[in-house]
Amino acid sequence: MSSLIAPRDSYPIEDAENIKKACQGWGTDENAIISILAHRNAPQRKLIRLSYQEIYHEDLIKQLKSELSGNFERAICYWTMDPSERDAKLANEALNKATVDYKMIIEIACTRTSEELLAVRRSYRFLFKHSLEEDVALKTNGPIRNLLVAIVSTYRYEGNEWDKGAAQSEASVFHEQIGKKAFDHEEIIRILGTRSKAQLCAAFNYYKDLHGTSISKGLLIDPIDDYLVALRTVIRCIKYPQRYFAKVLRNAINNLGTEEDALSRVIITRAEKDLNEIMDLYSKRNNTTLANVVAQYTSGDYKTFLLALLGNI
Amino acid sequence: MSSLIAPRDSYPIEDAENIKKACQGWGTDENAIISILAHRNAPQRKLIRLSYQEIYHEDLIKQLKSELSGNFERAICYWTMDPSERDAKLANEALNKATVDYKMIIEIACTRTSEELLAVRRSYRFLFKHSLEEDVALKTNGPIRNLLVAIVSTYRYEGNEWDKGAAQSEASVFHEQIGKKAFDHEEIIRILGTRSKAQLCAAFNYYKDLHGTSISKGLLIDPIDDYLVALRTVIRCIKYPQRYFAKVLRNAINNLGTEEDALSRVIITRAEKDLNEIMDLYSKRNNTTLANVVAQYTSGDYKTFLLALLGNI
Repeated sequence: MSSLIAPRDSYPIEDAENIKKACQGWGTDENAIISILAHRNAPQRKLIRLSYQEIYHEDLIKQLKSELSGNFERAICYWTMDPSERDAKLANEALNKATVDYKMIIEIACTRTSEELLAVRRSYRFLFKHSLEEDVALKTNGPIRNLLVAIVSTYRYEGNEWDKGAAQSEASVFHEQIGKKAFDHEEIIRILGTRSKAQLCAAFNYYKDLHGTSISKGLLIDPIDDYLVALRTVIRCIKYPQRYFAKVLRNAINNLGTEEDALSRVIITRAEKDLNEIMDLYSKRNNTTLANVVAQYTSGDYKTFLLALLGNI
Repeated sequence: MSSLIAPRDSYPIEDAENIKKACQGWGTDENAIISILAHRNAPQRKLIRLSYQEIYHEDLIKQLKSELSGNFERAICYWTMDPSERDAKLANEALNKATVDYKMIIEIACTRTSEELLAVRRSYRFLFKHSLEEDVALKTNGPIRNLLVAIVSTYRYEGNEWDKGAAQSEASVFHEQIGKKAFDHEEIIRILGTRSKAQLCAAFNYYKDLHGTSISKGLLIDPIDDYLVALRTVIRCIKYPQRYFAKVLRNAINNLGTEEDALSRVIITRAEKDLNEIMDLYSKRNNTTLANVVAQYTSGDYKTFLLALLGNI
């Protein structure tokens, strides 16, 4: 469930005018900007950006970038973008880090719907004049490349039905190859890169039924091997994305400074989707609420903004 | 250039009614059906099918299937379908042959635009409840699978600009790996499966500039190795699709009986695209025109229909 609190009806032209007002004169009225943008859903924000362009012949994102700064600027700009544009930029950022942030790529590829991922690929092509899979293939190597290219290129079937025979036989393929430590076996990549999520979850369940442990456990033998980490990330994103996101938030808070971006990324990308469920899982595991830790570890407009997206303001 | 002769304005309801009339009473008026459908472009045919459904609560394709038979039925049904539905069904047919017809898969993956291929994948998922790449991966094996999955999953950038450095270095990668007979090297598949067609053509040209022979020649060492044939087919479809299609037509006519389907497939899928150019290339190489051989080797309504699509009736 979405944590975002947005009015059913919104007035994009009025919103655009009020944002302009908040940017004019001495200083910027950050609270006014937050009170508008943090309470509009994606289609409403899109209309505000279009209206802003129409009235002031200026891109709203550019305006926000010039008025604001730091974490707050970054967060509110990503929030204001179209989700597919945002994901394309995040993916490009991940690819251009000194070490490719392959987990971010996996998160985008495996937690979005097939149509959403397609929209990301379209935005990516439009923004960067390359295809996403082209840049992923260029910037990575070896088995991790095979895995990443497969999951960013796929257009999975999204029906809920699945085939029992295939699920069982593919659970055995996983078990056999993992037993041989052939983690990068092409059948593993073929299955993860082409099957529907429902079909994969069925196979993961059979794996556990037949062998007593979950498939992720079988991959835990070397927690710093990049390929194994990537493989586990793919499986976790497909199996239970909300639990995966709750873990990303936990890591982000435990490693503030190094993984700070992940905190706002999860909040921004999930606020309109399943952030309530993620927050529930987070509280169950951490003896505190996400809102509490956000209030404790962040400050200023950034804090106000994130708390608003959590549904707390 | 398109060989199809279609009126600028068409009247889908009237067309649907006239097709219904042609199907009623004793026998079927095949000529009436041809005179309508063989002279309507894809959007016009789509409207006829929609109108037919609306008026008679019956699918036009089903109606045609029950009235007609043989090659003619098959050809006119494929022609009447939405191009993406047709390609999805062709791909599925190719996958379900006793030996997978990987050339047909390559043809669909490499000669359609990125958006067209995406539409095929969408239709495939809708019709067969699997993704195209899922079925391709299931039905194939080894290096040919890596190649096919890559080319059906890609969403290539379609701009005409290309990067000189990348084209030169990738021409060298091709040359180096082909020299080592590492035809299935993952870099070859990465490049062919992710780069834009303009970028690939630039690399093929550098290959020829630097090494004196074309890249396809370098792959000619074993004309019956399936993987090598597939690789050459990919390259030819990307480099010069019209020449590739002219060759498919030539083979189809030389092997009537075994590759007969290819004759109507090329005509049907290219009539609205570049069939004129393909026919020119065909005549240059074969001392006869495509219309002549169609007239010579086919008969009846099938012949009338194909000649109409060639622009001859």
